[in-house]
Amino acid sequence: MTGPSAGTRTFSWQDPTPTWQAGATMSGLEIWQAIAAGALPAPPIGELMGFRIPEVEAGRVVFAADAAPWLLNPIGTIHGGAIATLLDSCVGCAIHTLLPLGAGYTTLELKVNFIRGVTADGGELRAEGKVIHVGGTVAVAEGRLTDPAGRLLAHATTTCLILKPRE
Amino acid sequence: MTGPSAGTRTFSWQDPTPTWQAGATMSGLEIWQAIAAGALPAPPIGELMGFRIPEVEAGRVVFAADAAPWLLNPIGTIHGGAIATLLDSCVGCAIHTLLPLGAGYTTLELKVNFIRGVTADGGELRAEGKVIHVGGTVAVAEGRLTDPAGRLLAHATTTCLILKPRE
Amino acid sequence: MTGPSAGTRTFSWQDPTPTWQAGATMSGLEIWQAIAAGALPAPPIGELMGFRIPEVEAGRVVFAADAAPWLLNPIGTIHGGAIATLLDSCVGCAIHTLLPLGAGYTTLELKVNFIRGVTADGGELRAEGKVIHVGGTVAVAEGRLTDPAGRLLAHATTTCLILKPRE
Amino acid sequence: MTGPSAGTRTFSWQDPTPTWQAGATMSGLEIWQAIAAGALPAPPIGELMGFRIPEVEAGRVVFAADAAPWLLNPIGTIHGGAIATLLDSCVGCAIHTLLPLGAGYTTLELKVNFIRGVTADGGELRAEGKVIHVGGTVAVAEGRLTDPAGRLLAHATTTCLILKPRE
Repeated sequence: MTGPSAGTRTFSWQDPTPTWQAGATMSGLEIWQAIAAGALPAPPIGELMGFRIPEVEAGRVVFAADAAPWLLNPIGTIHGGAIATLLDSCVGCAIHTLLPLGAGYTTLELKVNFIRGVTADGGELRAEGKVIHVGGTVAVAEGRLTDPAGRLLAHATTTCLILKPRE
Repeated sequence: MTGPSAGTRTFSWQDPTPTWQAGATMSGLEIWQAIAAGALPAPPIGELMGFRIPEVEAGRVVFAADAAPWLLNPIGTIHGGAIATLLDSCVGCAIHTLLPLGAGYTTLELKVNFIRGVTADGGELRAEGKVIHVGGTVAVAEGRLTDPAGRLLAHATTTCLILKPRE
Repeated sequence: MTGPSAGTRTFSWQDPTPTWQAGATMSGLEIWQAIAAGALPAPPIGELMGFRIPEVEAGRVVFAADAAPWLLNPIGTIHGGAIATLLDSCVGCAIHTLLPLGAGYTTLELKVNFIRGVTADGGELRAEGKVIHVGGTVAVAEGRLTDPAGRLLAHATTTCLILKPRE
Repeated sequence: MTGPSAGTRTFSWQDPTPTWQAGATMSGLEIWQAIAAGALPAPPIGELMGFRIPEVEAGRVVFAADAAPWLLNPIGTIHGGAIATLLDSCVGCAIHTLLPLGAGYTTLELKVNFIRGVTADGGELRAEGKVIHVGGTVAVAEGRLTDPAGRLLAHATTTCLILKPRE
């Protein structure tokens, strides 16, 4: 992880069906706590991107990933899509942790401001999602991506539609 | 690619430095045509995500990817981050194809509207980026993600800062 | 309308209640056609801003306004808020024209890209809203603001929540 | 201001040229403090909308306005454009207060999330803009619109381009 380089990587992912099915008996907060603890399968894209989930609490979730060389764009900085994926994950999950048992959500839109470029030796990136508002139908959250020095790298806001509990 | 499943995947990527260095002698259009033709290294994140670049012309670039099981979120649909990565790629590259020799750009922000959920048997996703405006300092582009039936899955707009030629 | 100047202006507005009540018997398309024809009260903010509605059809609405000196910010260009108001109007109304009798909508978010500055002698500004997608619950539209020469001044996208017919 | 009603209003505005010219000798913070104190002309659009500027400090500016009947849309709630104008004002000005003497800015984009509808008897609306990041070329800020009970009505983020001091 010292700048651009060629490489080969192998990763594995689990079938996420048990995590999806857990929605029938666990709240969003319980589901993400279980994923963070390894008790439920992580999302496949999390394995693809190399995500970790170091913190989960009601209304706030942190995703982390290394600024790895396979996340680079041609100019040798972390691709905006990788940043958007981290931020999309943390803001959506932050909302999910405040939803009651059986309720789900779908993301309507995500906006990301890219503030500082990140190189492949940038160490651990932390994306902290926090809820701005959860109503009966719509929720809004924001996310902040920081580097190990605490500098702000990117900022995001999202709008999610809350899907009512299955009856 | 028939819905959620467990799996293992190995991918390789090239050092993108030659692509970055090509900016000294090739325009953005020439660079992306060379990447699409395999004559310059694709961005590492493109190998990670399984991207192809079927079309490159002045002001318009198409990225494509299969709706693969490693791109799923827990509820069995393609993660918004994967969609954002496709759209971020096509809109930025569309702008790049209109910049003169030596000029570069950096993405200031990206907004994505997620319109239809995409499952892992959704076939090829195509992200078409088109320029809305290229000025002397700032450029704006939009992107549309469609499925094999031509249905709109997501829409994006981006603002990029144009970096002047190195003198 | 020849650049920054001091001034005094008086405007009047109608009670919009008849327009709101018309939603019980008229579709969104019929309502906006009636407003454009002067048969129903225009929104008060339209009188405030000096808006006209020259074109209304299914999925497409045009709002127009003069680049007047009372819309200026301190640097002598049309304030972004005035541009956002024109664009918010045209994109929301474009969606409304495709909704069935009795259905309404509420705007969840609006994003505006400001592309060219507009001065107070800029003539008529035209904001054309077009629908990108109308589903059962959510709709997305885009808007383009142009000057009399047809140059693009600003671009917007919006996400609206569709409110079901009153039963 | 007790719900939708018809009415007539007269307002006056000053030529903003002295405010624009003050940029040669005053910093952004000084300019907005002078506008708030009535020592420099307010922007014409502020008079149009009925804005006040109760608080100005480095990196944070508050705009306020009454939820007046001339700001309504047809359904009797404050038009999203009025909300966008308040938020666009506070976020841009918050950035301006951190710029050095002679530097200006132009707003590249604004995104607004509309969270709660506001009626015409909603009392004073307060839009608080705070800087998220100010760099050498680009700045990002956020804004929050609240009602007298402190409830969040809308949230915005903006990207501004910093214009270098005139030399």
